Amino acid sequence: MGSELPTDNPLIISAGEPAGIGPDLCLGLLMRRWDRPLIIVADPEQMRQRAAMLSLDVDIAIYEPGKLIARDSLCVLPIDLANKNVCGTPDPANSPVLLEGLKRAVAGCQHDEFAALVTGPMQKSAINDSGIPFSGHTEFLAGLTNSETPVMLLVAGDLRVALVTTHLPLRDVADQVTAERIGTVTQVLHAGLVSRFGIEDPVINVCGLNPHAGEGGHLGNEDQTIIKPALDALREQGMRLRGPLPADTAFTPMSGSADAVLAMYHDQGLPVLKYAGFGNAVNITLGLPIIRTSVDHGTALDIAGSGKANHGSMYAAIDLAHALATK
Amino acid sequence: MGSELPTDNPLIISAGEPAGIGPDLCLGLLMRRWDRPLIIVADPEQMRQRAAMLSLDVDIAIYEPGKLIARDSLCVLPIDLANKNVCGTPDPANSPVLLEGLKRAVAGCQHDEFAALVTGPMQKSAINDSGIPFSGHTEFLAGLTNSETPVMLLVAGDLRVALVTTHLPLRDVADQVTAERIGTVTQVLHAGLVSRFGIEDPVINVCGLNPHAGEGGHLGNEDQTIIKPALDALREQGMRLRGPLPADTAFTPMSGSADAVLAMYHDQGLPVLKYAGFGNAVNITLGLPIIRTSVDHGTALDIAGSGKANHGSMYAAIDLAHALATK
Repeated sequence: MGSELPTDNPLIISAGEPAGIGPDLCLGLLMRRWDRPLIIVADPEQMRQRAAMLSLDVDIAIYEPGKLIARDSLCVLPIDLANKNVCGTPDPANSPVLLEGLKRAVAGCQHDEFAALVTGPMQKSAINDSGIPFSGHTEFLAGLTNSETPVMLLVAGDLRVALVTTHLPLRDVADQVTAERIGTVTQVLHAGLVSRFGIEDPVINVCGLNPHAGEGGHLGNEDQTIIKPALDALREQGMRLRGPLPADTAFTPMSGSADAVLAMYHDQGLPVLKYAGFGNAVNITLGLPIIRTSVDHGTALDIAGSGKANHGSMYAAIDLAHALATK
Repeated sequence: MGSELPTDNPLIISAGEPAGIGPDLCLGLLMRRWDRPLIIVADPEQMRQRAAMLSLDVDIAIYEPGKLIARDSLCVLPIDLANKNVCGTPDPANSPVLLEGLKRAVAGCQHDEFAALVTGPMQKSAINDSGIPFSGHTEFLAGLTNSETPVMLLVAGDLRVALVTTHLPLRDVADQVTAERIGTVTQVLHAGLVSRFGIEDPVINVCGLNPHAGEGGHLGNEDQTIIKPALDALREQGMRLRGPLPADTAFTPMSGSADAVLAMYHDQGLPVLKYAGFGNAVNITLGLPIIRTSVDHGTALDIAGSGKANHGSMYAAIDLAHALATK
């Protein structure tokens, strides 16, 4: 039993920025047995170089669709980087090849060649420096799959947190929290909890925008004038939503247990999630036609090739992709 | 040994709003043995009423300075409420007496009659409705003791969180985060960690204002133009400060362990603290000449007298007041 190969269709894992810790994390995957075959989008030559830096003796096999993969080899869907000698220093010249690799992975997910996509960290600045506009994986994948409202959901154990607004200066947040945005994000989140997580009738705790959810208008009025009517309209569609809740209780059992918490902005939701996750949080994109999970950290250029990278989030991203693909 | 009475000077505990759960929490104090005598500022008759509602057989003793207090009695420094029959419904007519009680407690702390003050929750609206302006315990105690910059520090286990700004609508936060405010709050926080907590050379993690601490100016420039120079000036005074840090890592070991985290605003810091505290967080006011701790929750009018109140935060507030007074 234990020596048989898994026959489910594989997960596809992009190593991400080759100058960062993505290749280190992928090389580390051989340390565990996985419930599905794993295919790594990477440059085989660059992976051999990085393995040598880490003093790892890794057998690299080249992926061939339909062919079984030996458990003790790292199976690579090959890309051919313009510059393979980049540890710690991204080269924008690699950007077109990296994005082609992602496209190949997504196409494979769309045609059931792969069960789900797991992404290692990319270096946004390097891609932008190559002249290709790139605001992040989430938006890139949404564009590739014609998805209108991708929603970032962060998961750490039982805690799931989604955001109404994401990467905005704090002073712009209040104006971007509109009833329309709350409506579309909540719908994508709700649909994702049902379809991806198999939660039949999910409960979502929704944070207010202001401290104490505005304390009856004493600390801002958006909670009453914008968020409450938006939630009431969604409740009429049958959704079970609590809120707007004071953010400092929305994540605790005091507000009642929930299947997800919807925060209004980045630093209202993610500090709790990262604190709870302790290096093992996973980022999922809802609202795509494919399953995509991701590590919750960056490229950590300063420790690439050093053996110091923490594998926790990559392991958790793969475990979750497998679980979602198996539902 | 175990039957001897503690002879340290007592902690003074205000029951707070008599219509809320404060009296319930004080009656519950007899369930534990404490390392110091506890004196409760409350109306003895109202406490007897509440004890009857909770089916508790509590012996109430009236405090006499210098007299030893039996362990199995609840020792009360008496106030005389205008309306004693208020369970669940605050009566503004009680406000002057409640504030007089607090003043008596503070005076006792200032003259070493009491070692520290622990406050139960007050109902701000009831006091304001009586015509007495009251924006909270913190400001009231600062006024009584001529303290210029009281700083709220929340504590849950090893995690300590202070805030640069507190109760503001979110859209006003960015303009209130000034170099001057950061300077005074950090100084009070630093001095409090040294003098109250006995930490010789504390390390403070300081959050940025914007997500990812502004990501080099791509997500707002206050982190670079306001916070960084303010921290640099404080570092020149010898303080060990990390930051401005992305708030989603500032609370985790990834940023290095710290003696406190300084958040720029309420919902950046308190959701993490309350999540970590799980009903046992404590609020301390730094920058006062007396030691003051407090429960981290409100009056919970809806469950007053029901026996459902969670004693965790009151217990933790007393334990911490004792620990700080013993240093």
